[in-house]
Amino acid sequence: MPALGTLAAALELELKGDPDYEIRSLATLESATAHDLSFVSEKKHLTKLNKTLAGAVILHPDWSDRWPGNALLSEAPYITYAKASVLFDNHPLASGCVDSRAFVADGVVLGTGVTIDAGACVEPGVSLGDRVWIGAGAYIGHDTVIGNDTVVKPGAVICHAVTIGERCMIHPNATIGADGFGFAPGPDGWVKIEQLASVVLGNDVQIGANSTIDRGALEDTVVEDGAIIDNLVQIGHGARVGSRTAIAAQAGISGSTHIGARCIIAGQVGMAGHLTIADDVHIGGQGRVASSVTEAGHYSSGTPIQPLRAWLRSASRFTQLDHMARRIAELEKLAGLDKKGGDSA
Amino acid sequence: MPALGTLAAALELELKGDPDYEIRSLATLESATAHDLSFVSEKKHLTKLNKTLAGAVILHPDWSDRWPGNALLSEAPYITYAKASVLFDNHPLASGCVDSRAFVADGVVLGTGVTIDAGACVEPGVSLGDRVWIGAGAYIGHDTVIGNDTVVKPGAVICHAVTIGERCMIHPNATIGADGFGFAPGPDGWVKIEQLASVVLGNDVQIGANSTIDRGALEDTVVEDGAIIDNLVQIGHGARVGSRTAIAAQAGISGSTHIGARCIIAGQVGMAGHLTIADDVHIGGQGRVASSVTEAGHYSSGTPIQPLRAWLRSASRFTQLDHMARRIAELEKLAGLDKKGGDSA
Amino acid sequence: MPALGTLAAALELELKGDPDYEIRSLATLESATAHDLSFVSEKKHLTKLNKTLAGAVILHPDWSDRWPGNALLSEAPYITYAKASVLFDNHPLASGCVDSRAFVADGVVLGTGVTIDAGACVEPGVSLGDRVWIGAGAYIGHDTVIGNDTVVKPGAVICHAVTIGERCMIHPNATIGADGFGFAPGPDGWVKIEQLASVVLGNDVQIGANSTIDRGALEDTVVEDGAIIDNLVQIGHGARVGSRTAIAAQAGISGSTHIGARCIIAGQVGMAGHLTIADDVHIGGQGRVASSVTEAGHYSSGTPIQPLRAWLRSASRFTQLDHMARRIAELEKLAGLDKKGGDSA
Repeated sequence: MPALGTLAAALELELKGDPDYEIRSLATLESATAHDLSFVSEKKHLTKLNKTLAGAVILHPDWSDRWPGNALLSEAPYITYAKASVLFDNHPLASGCVDSRAFVADGVVLGTGVTIDAGACVEPGVSLGDRVWIGAGAYIGHDTVIGNDTVVKPGAVICHAVTIGERCMIHPNATIGADGFGFAPGPDGWVKIEQLASVVLGNDVQIGANSTIDRGALEDTVVEDGAIIDNLVQIGHGARVGSRTAIAAQAGISGSTHIGARCIIAGQVGMAGHLTIADDVHIGGQGRVASSVTEAGHYSSGTPIQPLRAWLRSASRFTQLDHMARRIAELEKLAGLDKKGGDSA
Repeated sequence: MPALGTLAAALELELKGDPDYEIRSLATLESATAHDLSFVSEKKHLTKLNKTLAGAVILHPDWSDRWPGNALLSEAPYITYAKASVLFDNHPLASGCVDSRAFVADGVVLGTGVTIDAGACVEPGVSLGDRVWIGAGAYIGHDTVIGNDTVVKPGAVICHAVTIGERCMIHPNATIGADGFGFAPGPDGWVKIEQLASVVLGNDVQIGANSTIDRGALEDTVVEDGAIIDNLVQIGHGARVGSRTAIAAQAGISGSTHIGARCIIAGQVGMAGHLTIADDVHIGGQGRVASSVTEAGHYSSGTPIQPLRAWLRSASRFTQLDHMARRIAELEKLAGLDKKGGDSA
Repeated sequence: MPALGTLAAALELELKGDPDYEIRSLATLESATAHDLSFVSEKKHLTKLNKTLAGAVILHPDWSDRWPGNALLSEAPYITYAKASVLFDNHPLASGCVDSRAFVADGVVLGTGVTIDAGACVEPGVSLGDRVWIGAGAYIGHDTVIGNDTVVKPGAVICHAVTIGERCMIHPNATIGADGFGFAPGPDGWVKIEQLASVVLGNDVQIGANSTIDRGALEDTVVEDGAIIDNLVQIGHGARVGSRTAIAAQAGISGSTHIGARCIIAGQVGMAGHLTIADDVHIGGQGRVASSVTEAGHYSSGTPIQPLRAWLRSASRFTQLDHMARRIAELEKLAGLDKKGGDSA
């Protein structure tokens, strides 16, 4: 239960109001009560200040006249909210111990303060940096190297010879370094191509729950520093995700596709293999990326939902589109518009 | 191997035929043999009765003249089939014991008849209701509360401080309560927002295999009573799934989206964040839901598969659609149809 | 570090060049260095030979005049590459032992050379063939039968009474045989239909990481010999995947749909239930398969990404397509084109 003045000091912000006011937790403007700290991240939410019961609010200094109560003034209120969330964090803490019920091979290299919980399995040749935390039932394959302060949550599986940087978080039931989907079509069926390369995750990488990052066939699959990946995402073998790129849930990146830095890939986007996506590209939800994207910018594909009967007509007409276009061209020819019609668009 | 009369009594149905006839299992009309019980759920399937070898059939009373053999008469044959399936269930039973090879923290609260299988990990502060079954290798995080008769299958991970109601089933490798995908964009990269809230599942909720239900940032992610969720589904932080809503495999619900009661969300549907979906909304497969839906009804989006060359033409024309529409308008202007053309649609 | 001559003998290929040349690993033409073996799988890649530093190359005999260095001549270079990958494989080997820290029920039938790693759980009634390998923390349910040389990777969950053939590989965190999504709509909510059938995987089947293959309600879910399934794929209850069919990541096959042999189902494809897909059908990425496909061939659906503003116009026009088509028809009527216009397409 910190006092507001203590919070201001911890966040290095100017406080407007009562430094002794007690704050119990963080809350949205809508749900905050008297001892909650809330925040306004965008100007359009300022009107919500009229109704909020929050005991204090994180605000941009320019907006301080809109709120008569306790305020923490921040040039970047949303970042301040993120930093404040750490102060109120309620996640269980690491024990700093290797549980006697964990299955740790002889000769594993452990940094200082490593935690390995019950039922976790750490294979021979593994090296874990300082303060690494391997959750209950997680699996760390042979010769894998994990950097300082990285957390592998319960049930996650890291296969052999994977390299993971510092301060990463691998969420539950994620799978890192399973075999890429590589098979040659033979006369008697598919011939498996052994996946000889591995996975390299940089520093500060997040991998969401139940996501899968496959190991490469001949070249490593790479996720660069600061990239964040949500749940149920598939990253194919030999793909590369650029620094600080964000990939939302259920997106799929096929093998050997290289995504640049600072991209935003929305949920359920699908990318074909062997593509190159430039830096700072944003792809909208369910986007169908079948060819490379060479310029930064926002892209989207797909169609919006319609009431079923209207959609059935649209979808049916979609299959006739080429025919429709030819009919328009013929009409234009008849009307003497021909190519000139194109200029009007 | 119950007698038909015993089944009729158990299901509280009128029996037409031989009460001593022995039934060994349930089967479809097509595959049933002499000692199988089958069912007709819809009128359109009545013609299959001519060919079936089933020893008995669950039927609506109105259809009883279509079948001369043994019949169980039910006003709701499909519900009766569901209830009969319980009588023939062959799933392994819970032992009712805590396996000595499970990892159970001191002070965990256990109801009567709790089963915890080998390799499962139950953290401090957990409370498990009567007859709860924690499968092999499952993980139950600190302070999580699970209601009576709920089953957590092998490999599922329930993070800390999650609340799960009664009679729920969490299928293998599902992840409940992992951190939501919350990050603030800072000048030096993404700043993680600690996810301080949790997940609340009501009573009679089903969560499919390898699905992920993220914990909330400031407000709980909620799945209400009787909602059923299939495999590989993503429910983002702070989302809410209404009572008795069904969500099929691989659908994704982004953060803070609220879905009403009794909705049917088909497979691979994607919903953007911060939307509100009314009660009784049905979204067709792969539906792209980018804005709120305020009225009950059936909605769909997307386009049907076509042979590749035809599709390439359709897809190419799609990108020219606005231009095509303008050309039509110009032709109408030339023909003196103008706005009047619109009335014919 | 085999000599090239040894490799040629192992692969049964003609060697052009120095049999004593030492090869250390496999690499792409672009990244190969002096002691790497590389390959040219398609004619279009022959130009890369000009720049490669590879010490030896797998080539079609017809192309041997394009490369002056060491060569392994193969009628099928890509298959040869696959076979060579096995010679350089670096995966950890099975111990051939049952780890004392595994949880193996009494009476489980074990073939010769079975490996069961720490934390794995094998329930009563299970039968494991020769050289089967159950990875750390994997779960094998009651009465499941697994054929010779099959590998179940860490964290995978195989439920009860599943049948798995020989030489299969089940990747980490996959779930085989969880309950199908079967519920009857009752007046008081969904009534669960117990899933009484199971899953049958043939020989040489691959199931990717975090994929889910549900057990059938009344009829088994079947994956036939030689089918290969990538990560995060959903196969619904009672579905059937034909021999040698390949299904890429995040595709979803709904219940009771039967896919033929040798099909290629690309990533994120969605198939509705109760369909029949012919042999040798290829469906492009994100394909929306809502009805049966009776003829072999390539099919696709969806729309390509466009810059956001252009896409917004296309997507908006999509919802007006039927109206546009009617306006074209009216214009044609006015111009006296009527049905004749259709002939021009």
